[in-house]
Amino acid sequence: MGFWKSLFLGSESAASPKGLPSRGYLADLPNADENSRIIFSTDRDLDLYELEELCDAVGWARRPIRKVKKAIQHSFVVVTMWEERGARRRLIGFSRATSDHAFNATIWDVVVHPDFQGKGLGKALMKQLIKTLRNADISNVTLFADPHVVEFYRNLGFMPDPEGIKGMFWYPD
Amino acid sequence: MGFWKSLFLGSESAASPKGLPSRGYLADLPNADENSRIIFSTDRDLDLYELEELCDAVGWARRPIRKVKKAIQHSFVVVTMWEERGARRRLIGFSRATSDHAFNATIWDVVVHPDFQGKGLGKALMKQLIKTLRNADISNVTLFADPHVVEFYRNLGFMPDPEGIKGMFWYPD
Repeated sequence: MGFWKSLFLGSESAASPKGLPSRGYLADLPNADENSRIIFSTDRDLDLYELEELCDAVGWARRPIRKVKKAIQHSFVVVTMWEERGARRRLIGFSRATSDHAFNATIWDVVVHPDFQGKGLGKALMKQLIKTLRNADISNVTLFADPHVVEFYRNLGFMPDPEGIKGMFWYPD
Repeated sequence: MGFWKSLFLGSESAASPKGLPSRGYLADLPNADENSRIIFSTDRDLDLYELEELCDAVGWARRPIRKVKKAIQHSFVVVTMWEERGARRRLIGFSRATSDHAFNATIWDVVVHPDFQGKGLGKALMKQLIKTLRNADISNVTLFADPHVVEFYRNLGFMPDPEGIKGMFWYPD
């Protein structure tokens, strides 16, 4: 985990796959404000309007809340990232993965608030997600990367088109 | 559906998403033996040893039955293809997809027995799977194609790397 020393110290594991902790904090964030800390959670009971605000902040097209709720319910893992400042908590990152719970997982909807980009937090968020998937014994972790984030994922160990395998999307005729 | 006239005439919908029929037959198979017919099913209660035999026939690496069972249970859709000859039924094709039940699906483990390849049955199997996903209101249907099947999927309407989106796989450092 590089300079990230301490992860997942809390433990509220009910909703997490394989008894992983659903909440934990990340200590020793470089350049961190002394009055704030960054927290990760796998609890999927989050305010969907706060998530919509986060997605708005990075310019994503709006999606019906009802469908977002369903997608979160049926994701295998959800990892969120929060800035905690005293009693206040702000959602600053989100990611999720679908899976067959056995072999494969596919990562969707990775987002970090622009105010918190460029600090290594996207990387930390992804590492949490990958760690959670690996702890659940998923060996094939996949995603579909937009061109401008291919390098970001490559730096995390993701390979584009390994052995010529092509990501493909279906469009109606 | 091209020359495939008739699909999903049966109806045992309990386990299917959105009330789709879980079993149906495909009539008017060209060059079909008069004594046999090809059947599709979305019933996931299948003999896993028969599935293993099918995967052996195309040379796939063996996987633990326990994990295959779990993967099937946690797939969003499973579509199987059978040759029915009198009271005998033989598994000749398999496919499944994971999904968040709202936006995205990813197709895995598409296989057609070598004895039944080159007859358009792989295409018919995929069309059943896509139709099932579309009926469940999934708009983003994805897959990862080995190089030798990219053209097969392209002919079905799948686009490789649309708008530069890259399929990526994670490997441990």
